[in-house]
Amino acid sequence: MKIDRRLELANKPAEDALRLHPIYRGKVQMLPKCPIRSFDDFAIWYTPGVSAPCREIHRDHEVVYELTDRANTIAVVSDGTRVLGLGDIGPEAGLPVMEGKALLFKYLGGVDAIPICLATTDPDAIVRTVRFLQPSFGGINLEDIAQPKCFRILEALQKSTEIPVWHDDQQGTATVLLAALQNALVIVGKRLADCKVAMIGMGAANVATYRLLKARGLDPSGVIACDSRGTLHARRHDIEENYRAVPEKWQVCNETNPERVTGGVRDALAGADVVIAFSRPGPGVIRPQWIKRMSKDAIVFACANPVPEIWPWEALDAGARIVATGRSDFANQVNNSLGFPGIFRGVLDVRARTITDGMALAAADALAGYAEKLGISEERIVPRMDEWQLYPHVAAAVGVRAQEENVARIYKTHDELHEQATRTIATARRATELLMKEDIIAPPP
Amino acid sequence: MKIDRRLELANKPAEDALRLHPIYRGKVQMLPKCPIRSFDDFAIWYTPGVSAPCREIHRDHEVVYELTDRANTIAVVSDGTRVLGLGDIGPEAGLPVMEGKALLFKYLGGVDAIPICLATTDPDAIVRTVRFLQPSFGGINLEDIAQPKCFRILEALQKSTEIPVWHDDQQGTATVLLAALQNALVIVGKRLADCKVAMIGMGAANVATYRLLKARGLDPSGVIACDSRGTLHARRHDIEENYRAVPEKWQVCNETNPERVTGGVRDALAGADVVIAFSRPGPGVIRPQWIKRMSKDAIVFACANPVPEIWPWEALDAGARIVATGRSDFANQVNNSLGFPGIFRGVLDVRARTITDGMALAAADALAGYAEKLGISEERIVPRMDEWQLYPHVAAAVGVRAQEENVARIYKTHDELHEQATRTIATARRATELLMKEDIIAPPP
Repeated sequence: MKIDRRLELANKPAEDALRLHPIYRGKVQMLPKCPIRSFDDFAIWYTPGVSAPCREIHRDHEVVYELTDRANTIAVVSDGTRVLGLGDIGPEAGLPVMEGKALLFKYLGGVDAIPICLATTDPDAIVRTVRFLQPSFGGINLEDIAQPKCFRILEALQKSTEIPVWHDDQQGTATVLLAALQNALVIVGKRLADCKVAMIGMGAANVATYRLLKARGLDPSGVIACDSRGTLHARRHDIEENYRAVPEKWQVCNETNPERVTGGVRDALAGADVVIAFSRPGPGVIRPQWIKRMSKDAIVFACANPVPEIWPWEALDAGARIVATGRSDFANQVNNSLGFPGIFRGVLDVRARTITDGMALAAADALAGYAEKLGISEERIVPRMDEWQLYPHVAAAVGVRAQEENVARIYKTHDELHEQATRTIATARRATELLMKEDIIAPPP
Repeated sequence: MKIDRRLELANKPAEDALRLHPIYRGKVQMLPKCPIRSFDDFAIWYTPGVSAPCREIHRDHEVVYELTDRANTIAVVSDGTRVLGLGDIGPEAGLPVMEGKALLFKYLGGVDAIPICLATTDPDAIVRTVRFLQPSFGGINLEDIAQPKCFRILEALQKSTEIPVWHDDQQGTATVLLAALQNALVIVGKRLADCKVAMIGMGAANVATYRLLKARGLDPSGVIACDSRGTLHARRHDIEENYRAVPEKWQVCNETNPERVTGGVRDALAGADVVIAFSRPGPGVIRPQWIKRMSKDAIVFACANPVPEIWPWEALDAGARIVATGRSDFANQVNNSLGFPGIFRGVLDVRARTITDGMALAAADALAGYAEKLGISEERIVPRMDEWQLYPHVAAAVGVRAQEENVARIYKTHDELHEQATRTIATARRATELLMKEDIIAPPP
């Protein structure tokens, strides 16, 4: 296939999106979850009958999880300051992404997710608002919030809310990346602890990935990280000065790159076994000639969205053995979508109070294990999003780990959780197919 | 039918509600609105394709109404301080009502409504939070917020938001009450301007009803209002002292009851043609012997929920000619559900910037006119909730009035609006029936 044709194909989803978005005008809708057999049922679901469950919840707040949607409903909250790789485009412009996420949450995880784009970028206001939103929701998925404030917002909310709060761009990204990396290393026959890793772009995704990889055995002295100003090391006084805002990044400076290699992406990549890039989108961030200077069997994660740091074919032509991107139209989609639907399914099904690092590691193992069981290869280090059985598998693993870590409020066996998640997700998919079959959702022209 | 049997029947919805709420665990769910033909479609609705509509909205905020759910999505916002007639039971306990409302919004109006119960009762915090929520929503329905703060919250939001904000307990209640009263007066052959009207309970509902009835020709000097401390008049210094919080109520003191009749409900009812009660629930607020002292052809609105101020059979036995309550299990349900689905349908379909009193009056006329066309009687002064054609009829009337008042952003003819609303609502109903037929929504045991 010629390069021109490849680029053309790479642009097709955007063209289709522009053609189809105005036709459907949104991606999710509210529909009943309870039967309406006749007019008389309104007396049960609304006044006067509804006052009875209200009274029950007033008496005991916990039964809100038995009598309302709360147990299966989360909010996808963004302020639109870091949408995909597009940057600070505002809350309205972020809405298509949050709606897409809500679509995936339901279709892949059976989770009812409400897109909430906030008209404020002030971290304190975001924290206060999310705290106020709690009573309607069983969990919060933060999304596309700029760093460094996203770190402090997540921290503040995890401390002060009664429901689990997750920042998918940090935790979700790290979880799926770890799973993919584990399988890639199996293929090339290397151990994480021995790897030299270049990390390009030290925003929320890579800072969180660094932390999770360390928890899994990564040796920090083998890491060279790189932000827009160059490689990170203990003499990066600009980062030291900014310590309060992102202590995590200063920590990376101190723990990694013991030789204090200076320079940029090119220098970080020299001799690396793995490059993990979560930077600003656009090919050219990583150049083919730099890939050539990596170790044998190089593994390349070029995860910027919508346009990866290097096109996969370029990286492969330059000698990389395994290439992954965030896009669903290329092989090895290392996309959060593999994680969040199953993770939240598990979290909600055991009513976890929080989502721990241990639960993220369990999700990564479940993800990697699922792919491995079905067979992995250079072009398949993670499952594809349409391998539906993945999601209940992740859900059960996360639920079991929550129980082990004593953050669950509901106890069930792995099999029970797996069966419940399978049923919930199958129902969501069946409902979608039904709405399509009967033209409630009309076919695209 | 014996009284015992009647009371038993009146309690049945609450029993059914307690039995069925734990089975369905909520009343609404998110489902796709766009097709998912295969895995490849995720590249259109989510990354990478989704970045294209994001960019379009970033360029021009207005197209958010073309490319997302915003044009058809509203928030139903409550702080749980005045839920039904149950009082301040908190946001969690208010959730079953907001979910019921979301169910009706979709099933009767084709509107996607998101229940949002806030963990704050501070009016300023509520106003700020709702302002922050704007980007995801095409409108806001405030609900079950205690007075007097609800007046100030509505006012502040109407001044400071770009989307229409409606407090259904004020405006919605007043609209449906006016419609019902207009038809009741046709039946008994009286004119509103000549009527003596007793108003029991001077909370949000009756203060708003008073205002709307005045706009329609009610003579304030024929009104005697009554709150928990007795009748309202110009010497009610307790209300004068509270002027800042509810100037509207002090205005009622000054405009009505020129003879300064003192006493309570009994005194307000003496000689009245109409009693409009929106007070704390529980029979006994209005006693049968007081109904006997009303004028001939008395009209009784006993609208407390879930238990009316007097049971309908008691009021009829005491000589009232027309009795209406807020309950769907008795004749003449004067319930907001007749109004809000069609009103918001119309508001969204013309993208009205606000909802004016004129639009409320147009909705009341449409509602009254619809019932009259099909035939009205003592037991039918308003349509029943299952007369589906009502809602597009109200929607078109509201949309046309919004255009006439220059608050609409989209212009269409009455017929076009009627046709569009009919189609939207029919689709929502058909989707529900489909989900029930195929057991996505299982039948009740």
